Amino acid sequence: MTEKTFAFVLYPGLTVLDLVGPLQVLSAFALADPEFRVVVVGETLDPIGTDTPLGVTPSHTFADVPEPYGVLVPGGSAPTLDALANRPLIDYVASTARTAELMTSVCTGALLLGEAGLLDGREATTHWMFRDLLRAFGATPVARRWVDAGPVITAAGVSAGIDLALHLVERLGGPEVARTVQFGIEYDPEPPLGPLDWEAAPHGALKPLLEYTLGDVLTDRPDLKAKLLAYA
Amino acid sequence: MTEKTFAFVLYPGLTVLDLVGPLQVLSAFALADPEFRVVVVGETLDPIGTDTPLGVTPSHTFADVPEPYGVLVPGGSAPTLDALANRPLIDYVASTARTAELMTSVCTGALLLGEAGLLDGREATTHWMFRDLLRAFGATPVARRWVDAGPVITAAGVSAGIDLALHLVERLGGPEVARTVQFGIEYDPEPPLGPLDWEAAPHGALKPLLEYTLGDVLTDRPDLKAKLLAYA
Repeated sequence: MTEKTFAFVLYPGLTVLDLVGPLQVLSAFALADPEFRVVVVGETLDPIGTDTPLGVTPSHTFADVPEPYGVLVPGGSAPTLDALANRPLIDYVASTARTAELMTSVCTGALLLGEAGLLDGREATTHWMFRDLLRAFGATPVARRWVDAGPVITAAGVSAGIDLALHLVERLGGPEVARTVQFGIEYDPEPPLGPLDWEAAPHGALKPLLEYTLGDVLTDRPDLKAKLLAYA
Repeated sequence: MTEKTFAFVLYPGLTVLDLVGPLQVLSAFALADPEFRVVVVGETLDPIGTDTPLGVTPSHTFADVPEPYGVLVPGGSAPTLDALANRPLIDYVASTARTAELMTSVCTGALLLGEAGLLDGREATTHWMFRDLLRAFGATPVARRWVDAGPVITAAGVSAGIDLALHLVERLGGPEVARTVQFGIEYDPEPPLGPLDWEAAPHGALKPLLEYTLGDVLTDRPDLKAKLLAYA
């Protein structure tokens, strides 16, 4: 039996739903496929803060899982932009990409894939507010829920990780298993206000937030900051 | 300014998406409403295991937050049924209910509300596989995404917590704020295989799983176990 280990990557300040949506889906898939194993990796085993009052702890360190079958990198706001300068994190993403079959991201986790050199010349997506920043890494931004570019799959913002993960289950285990997992997590969404109307997206209201976010990050790395600001 | 503290309750083995979906939504709402504060409470501050390899840590203990404005109890499978016998947890839910304005649950967290005495004579919902068990607590089971019974609001399985939380934001802050939060978490679901077809729900395949789950839990509490089995 070939074990396929899928590693979810932690770093300080991440958006916790980016992580947990796909983690729940792929953990359910692991129950159905004994070859498939899910781990959560961090630089150390210490608890890490998120963008909520919840702390999270990994099951393994980066060093414990040097050659996973798949990797998922969650996103976030300012802490994720700061994480572009987090060498152990970027090095882990770059080194696992050499042997992994699947490198995936949710939300602005795509920027971390980009900094690790995985998006050059590829189509990719991220949180809608940050989409243009993908160009800083040589990617072509696409406004889709997820973009399956072969070994590199990127999802849109936050909740899109659930859809990405169900797509992964379908790709790895077929539609019947994916449907069973969907019943398991009762994923039959009913947004109380209905689907989003992208014509009404609050671009104007959120642009100052994006500029504020970019203004406050990467203070020790003017090179990285300039790279992002060129596309903001 | 009246502070409104919303407490997310941890216990061992919970289904982590039940917790994190609404936690992400209400944390986003807290950014928009300075009166609203989110905390995560556990019996102690120690890390707690979930139904995935991710561990979680609370920000406060039960004792730190004796009178929250609102409470959310996540669900899970066997560990949640075992938690029916977790006195500190059930006592916390029962005692906070005396002063809280909102007592809410996701998935089988509803059974914990039931054991704390909150569902007697009320309509409620839970994960579809466990729905009939609500009768053990005097509730009328309803097949809806969420059931708003005034101060007690219950959601269906796992991912339904996101819809419940957006409903809460709409109730507390109005539709404009709820829409902004929905854009923030980019909640515009596209399940790869489409919505669930409830005519095709795998009741048969999952019934043995339910029976197995019930067979293995509450071994020290035959009274509670018999109460559940009467409705399984």
